[in-house]
Amino acid sequence: MRFPAELPEPPYYAVIFPSRRPGDAPDDGYAEMAARMAELAAGQPGYLGQESVRGADGTGITVSYWRDEASIRAWRDNVEHSEARRRGRTEWYLDWAIRVCRVERGYGAD
Amino acid sequence: MRFPAELPEPPYYAVIFPSRRPGDAPDDGYAEMAARMAELAAGQPGYLGQESVRGADGTGITVSYWRDEASIRAWRDNVEHSEARRRGRTEWYLDWAIRVCRVERGYGAD
Repeated sequence: MRFPAELPEPPYYAVIFPSRRPGDAPDDGYAEMAARMAELAAGQPGYLGQESVRGADGTGITVSYWRDEASIRAWRDNVEHSEARRRGRTEWYLDWAIRVCRVERGYGAD
Repeated sequence: MRFPAELPEPPYYAVIFPSRRPGDAPDDGYAEMAARMAELAAGQPGYLGQESVRGADGTGITVSYWRDEASIRAWRDNVEHSEARRRGRTEWYLDWAIRVCRVERGYGAD
């Protein structure tokens, strides 16, 4: 997966998802789910890319990029994604937030 | 620093900054600069919060939140921040991107 993700022509949308796991989290199915969700998201209509990082202290940030708000809603309503979010809330995350944003401009190193 | 950051009433703005360092980066002044920039940003007008994570592979994401676009411009023009960005481009980062976004909605675990 390219990091940083592609820089499409604005406007487009970003979903910023910071989450906090225990720093010493065991292998509780989380890594497998995260890999599956990244793969599943990449196949959705309107998907533009994703950046995801987790630190040794358990904090993580995933940002996914989308063509429009309709793509974000469709991904939110995906059944497998909904089940992963439910398990996240109850099993995997100590805390989290979601912010939905309209990307106004972007530029990179090149 | 609170993680996730506060959830102000939208609209407000986010600057998403993914960056890639070498996975085995030496202590080259980067950590000290990053801590100083976080402290300096927090003192700027319009600053609303920040989330920052770096993984063992060298990829990192910092998201800072701002009241309006004017606050983002003022922070961009800060002299010490400009010098840190210059060193980042030439010394610290293999790659990076910046995306400026308007946050339309946000919610958290509580």
